[in-house]
Formats: sequence, C-alpha cells, structure tokens
Amino acid sequence: MTITGISKGSGMIKPNMATMLGYVATDAEVDAELLHRALRLATDQSFNRITVDSDTSTNDCIMLAATGTSGVVIDEPLFEEFVEQLTLVFKQLAQAIIRDGEGASKFVSVVVETAQDSVEALAVAYTIAESPLVKTALAASDPNWGRILAAIGRAGVHNLDVNQVQLSLNNVLIAENGARAASYSEEAGQAAMQPEDISIQVALNRGQVAETVWTTDLTYDYVRINAEYRT
Amino acid sequence: MTITGISKGSGMIKPNMATMLGYVATDAEVDAELLHRALRLATDQSFNRITVDSDTSTNDCIMLAATGTSGVVIDEPLFEEFVEQLTLVFKQLAQAIIRDGEGASKFVSVVVETAQDSVEALAVAYTIAESPLVKTALAASDPNWGRILAAIGRAGVHNLDVNQVQLSLNNVLIAENGARAASYSEEAGQAAMQPEDISIQVALNRGQVAETVWTTDLTYDYVRINAEYRT
Repeated sequence: MTITGISKGSGMIKPNMATMLGYVATDAEVDAELLHRALRLATDQSFNRITVDSDTSTNDCIMLAATGTSGVVIDEPLFEEFVEQLTLVFKQLAQAIIRDGEGASKFVSVVVETAQDSVEALAVAYTIAESPLVKTALAASDPNWGRILAAIGRAGVHNLDVNQVQLSLNNVLIAENGARAASYSEEAGQAAMQPEDISIQVALNRGQVAETVWTTDLTYDYVRINAEYRT
Repeated sequence: MTITGISKGSGMIKPNMATMLGYVATDAEVDAELLHRALRLATDQSFNRITVDSDTSTNDCIMLAATGTSGVVIDEPLFEEFVEQLTLVFKQLAQAIIRDGEGASKFVSVVVETAQDSVEALAVAYTIAESPLVKTALAASDPNWGRILAAIGRAGVHNLDVNQVQLSLNNVLIAENGARAASYSEEAGQAAMQPEDISIQVALNRGQVAETVWTTDLTYDYVRINAEYRT
C-alpha cells in the first residue's frame, strides 16, 4: 500500500480546513466512512496544527482519495495503522508548508507537554506561535525566553502555577521554578537558537496531555511580501 | 476641576492592566470607591481597547490620583460626568501610545457597529486589528478589503450573515450584500487609504452594540526594532 500527497500554501496560513491546498491519494481500498474518519484524525494532527500568521484562509482544502488498486483493504482492524501512516504523510506535507512560509527563515516546533487537556495545551502553543514578539526574536536567533514566558502567562490557562513551568529551547533548559534555570548560560541559549530548526518546549507539569504546533518566524520578508502583494 | 495624565508604551502593547505605564491625576475630591469605579470604567474604554501587537505585557499599569485641591467634590450625581471627562483623557493617552507604536506608520481605528453584544463586536475588532495580513496591507496603504472580510469571517461570530455585513474604509463604502459595493472604485479605495489616520468601519447589522479598538500597521520597522532588541 502506498500513500502519496502534494500540498501548497505559504501565507494566510492557519488552516481550519478552509488558501492551503492538499491532495493525498492511496492505492488502498477504504470504505468512504472510514476514509473520512481517517482524514479528520490525520488532519487534526497535521494541517490543523500549523500557523504562519494566524490568518485562516477562506479556502483551505485537503482532499484524500483511495483507489483500491493495491488490493490492500483497510478495515477496522487495520484502521489505526492506516491513520498512523496517513498522519505521517499529512505531517510531512503540513511541515513543508511551514518551511515554505512567507519570509520564513526558521522552522519552529512549539511543543507543550504535561497540560491538563488539549484545549489548554493548544492555547499555550498558539499564543507562543502567534506572538509577534516571539516571532521577531526567532528571526533574530535570540533566546528571548522572557517573551515566551509572557506568552504562556497570557494564554488564559486557569490557575497556572508559573513555578511549575519548565521552558527549553532546542533541549537547553532555560527556565524552571519561576526563574532562569541555574544551569542556563547566555552562550548556551545563543547556540541553541542558531539552527534553522527550533524547538520551543514547554512543560506545564499539571497533567498528561501534549500538543505540538508548527510555525515560522516573523521577518522583513513576510512584511515585504504581504505589503507588496496587491489584490 | 482639572484632569491631567501622562503615559508610556510602544511595543508589547495589548494592555490588560499588566509595559504600558499611565499616570493620571485630578484635583477633584473623590471618594476612594467612586474613584476606583471611575478608573475601571474609563480604562475599559481606552487603555483596554488598544493593541500594537497583541502581546499583553506582564506589567502594564495605570494609576489615578485625586488630590481634592480644587475643592470640587465628585459624588454620585456628578459621577457620570466625571467618568466622561476622565475617559476623554484616558482615550487621548491610550491613542498617543498607538501613535507611538513600534514601527507604526498608521493610526487605525477599527469600529464595529450593530453587533449583538460587546463580546462579538470586540472579537471582530481584535481579529481585524491583530491580523498580520490586514496590518501589512495597512502599511502599504492598500485597500485590501478581502483580508478584512476574511478576518471578520474567522472571528468566531455565531451565525454571522455575511450578506448583512457592510465594510467602509475612511467612509468609502467597500463591501455590502456579500460583495463589492456597486459604488466602489479602486481609485476611491486607494485615495481613502493614503492618510495616516485610517478608520475601518464594520457594520454587522444584527444588533445595537458598537465597540472601537485602536491599532497600528505592521512595518519593517516593527520587525527591526523587535529583532534587534536584546534582553
């Protein structure tokens, strides 16, 4: 069985299945109802977890077709594995849109762990991912953790204990116990921010739920592209 | 009676009374409880209605003092008028922060009218005011009304009838009845966007409530200032 796909999009990107286009096909044989469930599950963990600029387009679209030519039949017992494989393809396509984001110089994963539920994990992840101050710091490869902590603080998490929050940048522990981590050095922070791929890792330490959102930095080029583009 | 004030702030600005500073004093005599009520009412219509970049600071502050040296006593019968005068001063200070916004080349009023309630009016106003695509179009003096309509559409207003929505830029009617207004010309739109002061006027035509939010455009200079600034 094969799953192949192609996608397009670079600005006005915070899909809620509304300028993003995605087409995926498999040669497996899948019942229409199962295929639709698989599409929704895979989309929620991929295309619906990316944001370039928080501007949801009016016409994002992801299409999934199953031709059945491989002879492999996806039924309930094989469903979970199919969704897993499909999600891998969807994530690859969604992440490719972020790498191609307007003006983007960084590929940023915002990973929020140990949240009480998905709603608060996503609220924290998107508040960080969409903060202009965080995004401009990323453009400058600046380990400006104060801006990230400020975004966590205004994300609307009820009764958040800031002393429990841990923040790492590319696996360098930056903050814990309500202050800068004792092990942290400015040099380590600077070094952590140099790669193109940046992971912002937040542990809330109040539950079991994790969510990841992928985003870009905010650069001169984003402004240029979107200020020059005329309708 | 005199009311005087001073305020400071230019980035990390979406006050929710947390880097913005404001100090206002009056020589009226006002009971502490009344003064506190007046402070909250005036703040809600001024400092809590501005956004440069949606990044709420951790330490915005507005202080109000009443010395009583004028001999004027503010009691319940005079309260409404006092709040009105105070709100005028607060709005002037709040708007001055926006005019001084990081990299700002435009002073933008987003006026949402005929909403069902304040919550939906503010949701629409902030979604427009914080959209990177709308803000970059403003920087280019581009009457890009499609981006504004898209922001209205994703603001989360329940059962919004887009055919009822009217959109004007500096009093030039752009869109109505779900499409471009018959009277609209590209030249008129371009001309409307040239001034430094821009008013984005949205009528939802589904209620009686109006709210206004003040914001800036998103320019190269905002990115420069916030990418260069090191903690």
